Amino acid sequence: MSDWKHRLADDGVDLNWVRRQLGALQIETPSWGYANTGTRFGKFLQASAALTLEHKIQDASEVHRLTGIAPRMAVHVLWDFPEGFDPHVGELAEQHGLKIGAINPNLFQDQLYKLGSFANPDPAIRKRAVRHCLASIEIGEQVGSSHLSLWLADGTNYPGQDDLVRRKRFIAEALAEVTLAMPDTMTLLLEYKPFEPGFYHTDVSEWGAAALFCRAAGDRAKVLVDTGHHLPGTNVEHIVAILLDEALLGGFHFNDRKYADDDLTAGSINPYQLFLIFEQIATARAGGIDAPIAYMIDQSHNVKPKLEAMVQSVTNIQELYAKALLVNRQKLHAAQGAGDIVAAEETLRRAFFADTTPLLEEVREQMGVPVDPLDSLRRSGIVEKRAAQRKADQSAQAGFA
Amino acid sequence: MSDWKHRLADDGVDLNWVRRQLGALQIETPSWGYANTGTRFGKFLQASAALTLEHKIQDASEVHRLTGIAPRMAVHVLWDFPEGFDPHVGELAEQHGLKIGAINPNLFQDQLYKLGSFANPDPAIRKRAVRHCLASIEIGEQVGSSHLSLWLADGTNYPGQDDLVRRKRFIAEALAEVTLAMPDTMTLLLEYKPFEPGFYHTDVSEWGAAALFCRAAGDRAKVLVDTGHHLPGTNVEHIVAILLDEALLGGFHFNDRKYADDDLTAGSINPYQLFLIFEQIATARAGGIDAPIAYMIDQSHNVKPKLEAMVQSVTNIQELYAKALLVNRQKLHAAQGAGDIVAAEETLRRAFFADTTPLLEEVREQMGVPVDPLDSLRRSGIVEKRAAQRKADQSAQAGFA
Amino acid sequence: MSDWKHRLADDGVDLNWVRRQLGALQIETPSWGYANTGTRFGKFLQASAALTLEHKIQDASEVHRLTGIAPRMAVHVLWDFPEGFDPHVGELAEQHGLKIGAINPNLFQDQLYKLGSFANPDPAIRKRAVRHCLASIEIGEQVGSSHLSLWLADGTNYPGQDDLVRRKRFIAEALAEVTLAMPDTMTLLLEYKPFEPGFYHTDVSEWGAAALFCRAAGDRAKVLVDTGHHLPGTNVEHIVAILLDEALLGGFHFNDRKYADDDLTAGSINPYQLFLIFEQIATARAGGIDAPIAYMIDQSHNVKPKLEAMVQSVTNIQELYAKALLVNRQKLHAAQGAGDIVAAEETLRRAFFADTTPLLEEVREQMGVPVDPLDSLRRSGIVEKRAAQRKADQSAQAGFA
Amino acid sequence: MSDWKHRLADDGVDLNWVRRQLGALQIETPSWGYANTGTRFGKFLQASAALTLEHKIQDASEVHRLTGIAPRMAVHVLWDFPEGFDPHVGELAEQHGLKIGAINPNLFQDQLYKLGSFANPDPAIRKRAVRHCLASIEIGEQVGSSHLSLWLADGTNYPGQDDLVRRKRFIAEALAEVTLAMPDTMTLLLEYKPFEPGFYHTDVSEWGAAALFCRAAGDRAKVLVDTGHHLPGTNVEHIVAILLDEALLGGFHFNDRKYADDDLTAGSINPYQLFLIFEQIATARAGGIDAPIAYMIDQSHNVKPKLEAMVQSVTNIQELYAKALLVNRQKLHAAQGAGDIVAAEETLRRAFFADTTPLLEEVREQMGVPVDPLDSLRRSGIVEKRAAQRKADQSAQAGFA
Repeated sequence: MSDWKHRLADDGVDLNWVRRQLGALQIETPSWGYANTGTRFGKFLQASAALTLEHKIQDASEVHRLTGIAPRMAVHVLWDFPEGFDPHVGELAEQHGLKIGAINPNLFQDQLYKLGSFANPDPAIRKRAVRHCLASIEIGEQVGSSHLSLWLADGTNYPGQDDLVRRKRFIAEALAEVTLAMPDTMTLLLEYKPFEPGFYHTDVSEWGAAALFCRAAGDRAKVLVDTGHHLPGTNVEHIVAILLDEALLGGFHFNDRKYADDDLTAGSINPYQLFLIFEQIATARAGGIDAPIAYMIDQSHNVKPKLEAMVQSVTNIQELYAKALLVNRQKLHAAQGAGDIVAAEETLRRAFFADTTPLLEEVREQMGVPVDPLDSLRRSGIVEKRAAQRKADQSAQAGFA
Repeated sequence: MSDWKHRLADDGVDLNWVRRQLGALQIETPSWGYANTGTRFGKFLQASAALTLEHKIQDASEVHRLTGIAPRMAVHVLWDFPEGFDPHVGELAEQHGLKIGAINPNLFQDQLYKLGSFANPDPAIRKRAVRHCLASIEIGEQVGSSHLSLWLADGTNYPGQDDLVRRKRFIAEALAEVTLAMPDTMTLLLEYKPFEPGFYHTDVSEWGAAALFCRAAGDRAKVLVDTGHHLPGTNVEHIVAILLDEALLGGFHFNDRKYADDDLTAGSINPYQLFLIFEQIATARAGGIDAPIAYMIDQSHNVKPKLEAMVQSVTNIQELYAKALLVNRQKLHAAQGAGDIVAAEETLRRAFFADTTPLLEEVREQMGVPVDPLDSLRRSGIVEKRAAQRKADQSAQAGFA
Repeated sequence: MSDWKHRLADDGVDLNWVRRQLGALQIETPSWGYANTGTRFGKFLQASAALTLEHKIQDASEVHRLTGIAPRMAVHVLWDFPEGFDPHVGELAEQHGLKIGAINPNLFQDQLYKLGSFANPDPAIRKRAVRHCLASIEIGEQVGSSHLSLWLADGTNYPGQDDLVRRKRFIAEALAEVTLAMPDTMTLLLEYKPFEPGFYHTDVSEWGAAALFCRAAGDRAKVLVDTGHHLPGTNVEHIVAILLDEALLGGFHFNDRKYADDDLTAGSINPYQLFLIFEQIATARAGGIDAPIAYMIDQSHNVKPKLEAMVQSVTNIQELYAKALLVNRQKLHAAQGAGDIVAAEETLRRAFFADTTPLLEEVREQMGVPVDPLDSLRRSGIVEKRAAQRKADQSAQAGFA
Repeated sequence: MSDWKHRLADDGVDLNWVRRQLGALQIETPSWGYANTGTRFGKFLQASAALTLEHKIQDASEVHRLTGIAPRMAVHVLWDFPEGFDPHVGELAEQHGLKIGAINPNLFQDQLYKLGSFANPDPAIRKRAVRHCLASIEIGEQVGSSHLSLWLADGTNYPGQDDLVRRKRFIAEALAEVTLAMPDTMTLLLEYKPFEPGFYHTDVSEWGAAALFCRAAGDRAKVLVDTGHHLPGTNVEHIVAILLDEALLGGFHFNDRKYADDDLTAGSINPYQLFLIFEQIATARAGGIDAPIAYMIDQSHNVKPKLEAMVQSVTNIQELYAKALLVNRQKLHAAQGAGDIVAAEETLRRAFFADTTPLLEEVREQMGVPVDPLDSLRRSGIVEKRAAQRKADQSAQAGFA
C-alpha cells in the first residue's frame, strides 16, 4: 500500500467509498461555454471558439475525452438551434461520445421580453414564453434529456415599474403549466439570481423565492444553485444544506465570482468556498442521502481559451470534491458534538490542503484518461488545430452566444 | 377645502381612505430603546437614559403622549425582568396609558448559549431555551400580549464548527414545541438576520429560511422583517411583497442601516426605501388585504438622545407611510399595464416628495397630540427633567441593556 | 412675496444665492445615452433611438431646449466617429444650439485591449492606447472641449494573470504622456471603478488609486466620480468631500444603482444619497470654494425611452441640487458645533423634503423653458416623430453604442 | 535530498531564499487577544482567559515558545495600563522572553469621545486625544517599541451630524502633532476601516484616505492594512501592491471575515485571499524591496479558546506565507508576459496547494520549537492549568478587554 493510502487510512478515510463517490461524479458542460462570449463592453474573439453547434459538440467531447467525467453537454435552445431544432443533434452528439444534457429555454433575448417573460403584464407574451418552454420540453424528450433548466431574467429596473405581487402570481401560473407538460422522467431546475439584467428587482431573486415556487409547482421542480448568483457575503454552503434537507436541491451551475455574477471559472477566486459546498454534499452522501444532483458548469469567461478553461474547471471541481470526500467525518462529528471548534475546523483544513494528486491520478488511470488532463490538452495542439479549421469569420456569429 | 386637499384630490387620492389607514397605524416602541446601548467598542451613557423598567414605561408613555400612535412597548424578558417577571408590570404600564406589546425572549446572552440555543448540540441547553420561551409565553398571557417575538442568535463562527442540517432540525423541533404552547391569541414572529453574532453562518439567516420554518410550525408563526437584517443590495420591499402574498408577513422591526445591522433610527439613511416598503403595504391594503402587521421599532442608536430619537423615528415612519398612502394607485396601475416605466416611477416620486405636513397636522390635531411632536418634546424640557431624576449611577446597569 | 419665498426666508435661505447657484448648474449629457444600449444579455431596441451622431445631437439639443441646463454633449470617440473624426461636428452641434463637451477615448473595445490598454504587458499596445488619447486631445482642441474624460477598463480576471505593480507603473507613464500633450485649457478626468469588465482586479479601482495617479500626473488631472462606481456601502458624499478639500475633484458621471454599476437613471434608486452629495458641494460653494466641477450624466438604461429618461435625469439632478441649496446652513453649523445630532439631521431632512416646485418653476420661467420639461416632452409628440424619421434598420448600428 | 526538496527544486524554488524569508517572519500577537472579548450581544467567558497584563504576557510568551515566530506582544494603553503605565512591564516581558510591540492608544472608549477624538468639534477633546498619543509615544520609548499603532474610531452616525471637511482637517493637524513628537526610531501606523462604530461615515474609511493623511504627515507615517477592514468585494492584495509600490505600507492587522469586521482568526474564511496577499509581498521581496512590514494579529474571536486560536492563527499565517514563497516566479512572469492566463493561475494554485508540512517541520526543528505547535499545545495541558490558576472571578474585569 503506497504512502498516500496509508495517510488517508490513518485519517479515517474509507478509500473505497471515496472512489465510488468520485466515480459517480459527472459534470455537464454548457454548449455556450465553447463559443465567444463577453461583457457588455465587448467580447474578445478566440480563433478556436466554436462557431456552430457541431463545433461545440466537438469541444465538449474533447473535454470528456480528457477528463472522463463530462459526458453531457447542456444546450441553449435559442443559441444552439437558432433556426429550429435539428432532430439529428442527438445522433451527432452520440457520434462524438456525448449525450445532450439540460435543455435551457431562452426567455430573455427576444425584444418582446423587454418587460418580462412569465411575469410580463401582457398575457400574449406570457403565453408565448410558456409555449417556448413546452417546445423545449419536446426537444428534451427527443434527445433524452432529463432536465429543463430555467433561468428567468424577469425583473424590473425602476421602483414602481410593475406590480411585484401580480408578477409573482403570473410566474406561479406559468410554472404550473410547464411542469404539468413535462414527462415523468424530467425535472425542472429553477435558477435564482439577485440582479442583472433587472437592476431594481428580480422576480426569482433568492433561493427562498425559488423554493416557494418549486414547492407550489410540485415534486419535479427543484432549485438550481448557481454559485455566482448571490449577494456579497451569502453563505452558499448553508443554502445547499437547507435545500438538501428540504429535498429541494436540483443541481448546480458552477462558476466563481468576486463581485457580482462575474462568471469566472469554477474555483478560481475562492476555492475554499467550493470545498465547503462539496463538504455539505459529502456529509449528505455519507448520511445516505442519494437524491440526484445535477452538476453543471455555467461560465462566461471572456479571456481564458475556452477549451483550456473548461478542462481546468472540470478538474478543479473534481479536485475540490475529492478534498471534501477526504474529510475525516468521525473526527469532525466528535469535535462538533464536543464543541471543539478548533479541532472541527482543523479537520476540514487538513482535507482541503491534502495532496489529492495520487488519488486523482489513480482514478483517472482507471477511467483511461490522462492523469493531468489540462497538461495533456496543452501539449496536444488541439486548440491550434481547431483554430485553423474554424478560420471562418467569427463575426458571422449572431447575438450573445 | 384647503389647497392641499384640492391637490390630493387632483392626484386621485381618496383622503378618507388615507385618514383611516393613518388612524390605524400603531407603532410599538422597544423598552431597550430607552436604555443606554452601544457598540462592542463601548457605550456612551446618557444622563436621561432609562435605568429601570419603570423609567422605560415613563419614556414609552411620553412617546405615545406626543405622537398618539405608540400605545405599546415591547419588552425583553432578560433585560426588563432580570430578577423574574413582576406581575404588576401590566398595571404599571396601564397607569401610564401604555400596554405591553411583544414579548422578546433572550436566547443569546447567557453563557450556556455559546454554541447556540435552539440549535445547540446539547439537548439540555435546547430544552432550557424552549423553557425560557414557554415562560415568555406565560408572561405574554399575563400582560395580554399577542406576540412572541423571537430572534435566534444561533449560528457558527467557523467552517466545520457544527452540522448545519442537524441544527436546522433542532430549531424546527423547538419551534414546534413553542408554537404548540401558545394560546390562540398569540402569534410567533420569527426574525431572520444574515450575520452577527455568528460570523460564519446563521441558522435563520434569510427570509427564505424563516418562511420555511414558519410554514412547518403552522399558521400562527409568521416572519418578522427587521429592515436592517439584510445583505447589501437586498430588495427589502420585494421580500415584503412576497411574504404578504404568501400570508407569511408577521411584522417589522424598523431601523435603518448603511452597512450591516447598524441599528440607526428608522428612515435616516435611505428614506426612499422605507417609502417603497410602505408602498407594498399600501398596495396590499388598497387591494383588500387586511392581515394584521405588527409595526415595531428596534434600534440601538448610541449617540442620539433616546427619547428624541424615538419620537423622531415614530414620526418618520408615520410620514413615510403617509407618503406611500398618497400614491395615485389608478395612475400607477395604468402606467404599469402600459409598460410606461417613466410615468409609473414619477407617480411614486410625486407621492414621496409630496408635502405631507398639512395632512399630518390634521391627523395629529384630531388625535389631540402636538402637531410637531419632536419640536414639542425639545421645547418641553422633559429630557432634562428626567436626567435630573435619574442621576443615579448608570454604571449600576447590568449587561447590554 | 409669495408663500414659498416666505417659508424659505424663514428657513434662513438666501434666495438670491440659491438662484445664482441654480443658474450656474450645467449638466452635460452623453451622446451614447441617446442610442440603443443594453446588458450583456441583449439590448431592447427603441424605435426612436439615435442611430447616427446627428440623431444624438438632435436629441441632446432637445434636452437642452426643454431644460435650459444641458448645453453640452459628451462624445465617445469610437462610437461617435467610427470612421474617423468629422471636423464639421462642432458646426453641426452649434446649428442645434449645442456644444461638444468631454471627449471620451475608448480603450476597451478593440480586440488588442484584451489584456489591457495603458497597463498592457505589450509596449506596442500601450503605445497605441496613448496615441488614441493624443488623437482624442486633438479632437477636443478642434471642437473646443475642455475635458478629456478617461475610463480605463484595464484589469485582470484571474489571480496571477499579471503583475499588479508593473501595470500600475505603466499607467502612470501613460498618464504622464497624455497630460503633457494636453493644451492648458484642458483637464484630464480620471474615472475609477471597482470591477467590470475586470472581475479579479481593476487597475484604477478606487478613488484612492485615481487620486494618487492624478497627484503624480500634475495639476490638470482630476478625479471623476461616477456615482455608480463603488462597492456596496461606500459613502460617496464623503469621497466627494475629501476630493473637494484636496482640490482633486474633477467632476461627476451621474447615474444610480442598487447593486453594481447598474447605470440606472440619476436619483432613481436612492435620491437622498444624491442630495447628500450635492449637500457637500453646496457646503463648499457656500464656503467660497469655486473650483469648476464637470457635471455629466453617464447612464445606460435599457428600458426607459431614451429622451424621456434623459430629461427626467436632468430635472432630477436639478431638483436634488436645489434641495441641497435650501439647507439652512447657519442652523446646520450651529447644531454640528453643539453636537445636536437630531437638529442637524432634521435641518437636512427639511430641505430634502421641501417642495421645490415653485422655485424651479420660477427658475425655468426665467430661462424660458417649460416649467415641467418632462411633461412638455411627453405632450410634444417629438419621440414619436423621431421614431418615424429613424425607421432605418437599427440593426445597422455597430457595437455597443 | 528528500522528495519534497526535489519537487520544490523541480518547481524552480530557491529553497535557501525561502528559508531566509521564513526565518525573518515575525508575527506580533495582541495582548487583548488573550482576554475575554465578545460582540455587542455579550461575551462568552473562558476560564483560561487572561485577567491581568501578566497573564497576557504569560500567554503571548507561550505562543512564542510554541511557534518561535511571535517574539512581541502589542499593548493597548487603556486596557493594559488602566491605572497608568507600569515601567516594569518591559522587564516583566523580558523575563518571559518577550518584547513589547506596537503601542495602541485608545481614542474611542472614553465618554468624551462620543463625537470623535482627533476629529471632535471640541478643541479641548482634540487636545486631550493628542495628549494621550504623546503619552503613548513615551510608553513606547520606555519599552523600546518602534510602532505607534493608531486606529481612529472617529466617524458619524447620521447625515449632517458633522462637517466632513472640517473633521478631515482636524485629523491632519493632530497627526502632524503626533508624528512630530515621535522619536526617529518610531513609525506611526495609521489604520483605516469602512464603518463601525461610525455607521454613516468614518473619517479614515479607506486606504486612500489613510494614504493621503500619511503623505501629509511625513515619511514616518505608514498605512496599516487590517485584513478585515474592507467593504465586501475589495481586492485587498491589490491595495497591498499599491501601498508597497508607493512606500506607504506599514504593516498588517491579520484576521479574517466573511461579512463585516468579523475579527475571526486569520485564514479561517478565505485562505486563498491571504495567500494572494502574501504573494504580493513575496513578489516585492523577490524584487529586492526590503522595507520593513509589521505583521500583527488583531482578532476578537469570541468562541475559540484564546491560546489555541492564537497558535492556530500564527501557524496559519506562517503556512500561507510559506506557500506564497513557493510560487515559481520565473514561470509566473513568463506566463504573464505571454498573456497565458491559465498557466499563470496554475502556477499560483500549484504553490497554494503544495504540501508545506515537511518544509515547515524543517524550519521549526531548526528553531527548536515543536513541529506541530497546535497539537503540542493541546497535548500540554497548559490551557487547563492556566484556567485553574486564573479561577478568580472574570466578572471583575472592566470594560471591553
